[in-house]
Amino acid sequence: MGKLARKVALVGAGTSKFGQTFPLRRIPEHWTDAWLNAVATVDNGIEPKDIEACYVGNYSADLFNHQGHLGPMISSLVGLNPKPAPRFEGACASSGIAMRQALITIASGLMDVICVCGIEVMTEVPTVGVTDALATASDVTFEYTAGATFPGLYAAIASAHMHKYGTTHEDLMRVAIKNHINGKENPYAQMQRSIKDLMERKIAKVKGAGGEVPDWKDEFDYLKSPSNPPIAWPLHLFDCSLVTDGAACLFLASEDVAKKFTDTPIWITGTGQGSAAIAMHDRTTLTALEATVEASRQAYQMSGRGPKDMQIAEVHDCFTIAEICAMEDLGFYEKGKAVEAIKNKDTYRDGAKPINTSGGLKSKGHPVGATGAAQAVEIFKQMRGIAERDRQMKFDVEIAMTHNLGGSGGTCVVQIYEK
Amino acid sequence: MGKLARKVALVGAGTSKFGQTFPLRRIPEHWTDAWLNAVATVDNGIEPKDIEACYVGNYSADLFNHQGHLGPMISSLVGLNPKPAPRFEGACASSGIAMRQALITIASGLMDVICVCGIEVMTEVPTVGVTDALATASDVTFEYTAGATFPGLYAAIASAHMHKYGTTHEDLMRVAIKNHINGKENPYAQMQRSIKDLMERKIAKVKGAGGEVPDWKDEFDYLKSPSNPPIAWPLHLFDCSLVTDGAACLFLASEDVAKKFTDTPIWITGTGQGSAAIAMHDRTTLTALEATVEASRQAYQMSGRGPKDMQIAEVHDCFTIAEICAMEDLGFYEKGKAVEAIKNKDTYRDGAKPINTSGGLKSKGHPVGATGAAQAVEIFKQMRGIAERDRQMKFDVEIAMTHNLGGSGGTCVVQIYEK
Repeated sequence: MGKLARKVALVGAGTSKFGQTFPLRRIPEHWTDAWLNAVATVDNGIEPKDIEACYVGNYSADLFNHQGHLGPMISSLVGLNPKPAPRFEGACASSGIAMRQALITIASGLMDVICVCGIEVMTEVPTVGVTDALATASDVTFEYTAGATFPGLYAAIASAHMHKYGTTHEDLMRVAIKNHINGKENPYAQMQRSIKDLMERKIAKVKGAGGEVPDWKDEFDYLKSPSNPPIAWPLHLFDCSLVTDGAACLFLASEDVAKKFTDTPIWITGTGQGSAAIAMHDRTTLTALEATVEASRQAYQMSGRGPKDMQIAEVHDCFTIAEICAMEDLGFYEKGKAVEAIKNKDTYRDGAKPINTSGGLKSKGHPVGATGAAQAVEIFKQMRGIAERDRQMKFDVEIAMTHNLGGSGGTCVVQIYEK
Repeated sequence: MGKLARKVALVGAGTSKFGQTFPLRRIPEHWTDAWLNAVATVDNGIEPKDIEACYVGNYSADLFNHQGHLGPMISSLVGLNPKPAPRFEGACASSGIAMRQALITIASGLMDVICVCGIEVMTEVPTVGVTDALATASDVTFEYTAGATFPGLYAAIASAHMHKYGTTHEDLMRVAIKNHINGKENPYAQMQRSIKDLMERKIAKVKGAGGEVPDWKDEFDYLKSPSNPPIAWPLHLFDCSLVTDGAACLFLASEDVAKKFTDTPIWITGTGQGSAAIAMHDRTTLTALEATVEASRQAYQMSGRGPKDMQIAEVHDCFTIAEICAMEDLGFYEKGKAVEAIKNKDTYRDGAKPINTSGGLKSKGHPVGATGAAQAVEIFKQMRGIAERDRQMKFDVEIAMTHNLGGSGGTCVVQIYEK
């Protein structure tokens, strides 16, 4: 495993407004919105003629939209034909992979500028169809047919983590509470409400209806109430990320041309991808995700940086437990020690290690094939100082990371960004 | 669009036996067979520890097998975890894309050895499910919902070609006759019978049953009989490729390590990928495929070679008309002139421009996501002098090409190979 032959930068990035938008807004609307929002961030402008390929990350338009062969459809919509338009898939890490392959392609010398699309429009099928489509990212022969869907698989991880490290249901809640606070500051997020907001709204509603007002002191009481029902114990409703339609667009450029687009490129100095058995029963442990360990090892090695250097990170919180595992498997904290940091509010925006300033998959939403690229959009905005509302870091972010997971950890892609 | 930073070679290649094999042989069996057959072609041996990533080309295990997230599943089966295992998709050009991205990744300096898997197991669903899954590679909003499936789309191309250039139904038959002759010499092909064999078998059957023996002078008479019914005029049964289960495996290595595996690497000196609107009504012409023109332009430019230099080629004959279009769009012949060459038997194994010596998709079979890699397997065997039975070229093949198409021409990947 070597080094990349030349440097590659992110010179523009944007997402569509995430949400449940079918039938009004489908693949074309989400993608063209993401494109336009990304174009608006390129200081000196960018046009289709500047771009040599369109790399598309998508989990399964096959199952969500009954549309395969998405590459040329996506590239047509922004005038990029007849340029190459491959599609990349690795479950929920699909656009992390698309971005990684774009980076590699530019480093190879073949191209100078590539546009990356991450997209998933999930609400064209009913909820049972969403659950089904997602479950095909697990082992269909042994896991899905035995009745396991993703909340169940991550519940097994959470149970094992609780058993081994004493992690509690309250620790999981803390992750959700923090991410919803961040999502409130993100105008592109699906849920822009803190859990406290939701609690107060519920209290007002009950009061308005003349009912008995619940005796909730804080968010924890609310999250222990029937408003937060169990989905697959120990995971409750607010431990799960959202079903979301959305797209993200990134513009990557070689060191040779990056300055044409901007004076402040964000360099992608590390990339790594790891794999593990997609069936959890084929792994050696439930409490650590080997693919994350491997992907981050590669990315740290390439960049010459370590976990302590990461000032902020977007990690793959498809479930609250996944954020805790990521914090440990990325080496930010020792195994079993992440919850202490969470209790200390280290991962809040004003903490020692801010995580998921975008709101994360938990609150920003999780259009699965768009998620990896959308994480890069948040890092781009934070590093360029253009994050909306009150979530912009108060210090100059010089080094950051994205961590994008597929399935129950069968695939992981990690990227490191530097100014 | 530049050059690759370093040279990349094919050092091993093999396929599984193609056929309709469900339920006996599914994804794991096809893939491990292809792997073992490819390993057997690596002169000095190759082991999982030598390989840095597994690049998987697959069209839609989502729809054919209800299994997404195929990358880590494929890599697990051959002991490659925790290495990267991304999946690549571009309809029937999926493993052409996987191979191209592996080539680019090695050229980038990031890795030295990558294993490419192309796979599709299509017969787990009934025929209507196959037609449906394939149709999602067209424009689902406008084409498929209007009733068009792939035979219909290629029938429109064939009709237009007939109208513009005077191409006839007999010309289409000639493509099928030649490819079935070649497939007879390929022990990995799904149909190892010439059309003459099929005709004689039919005659013998009718005779045996005491029926009236058909007055067929040659294959053309047979192909004009009810044994070759129309599917979508002018395309008949024998104008269509097959529904197939199969896998292909390729080992790619950088110039720095290729000699470790073999003294006779096959260099991949050119690669190109093009796109076009996936809906045919959005294109400027039906009789030429812009994606092929663009992909070959890039590959010729990179390799410094031209159409005349290609001694043999595997082209994407998903329908007989597609082989004719490819011969023209790749620049082997002027538009409208390919049929003359076909009449002259130029594309036979002993002709001036042998095409689809493997039997092509028409006779070898078309496991869609495996096809691009399987084309490379044939070229590898021909260039190494190890093609089975009587189909090995009688001269030393020094330059060759693969042409892999997705959908009705929305995606095309071309690769050029040299000794």
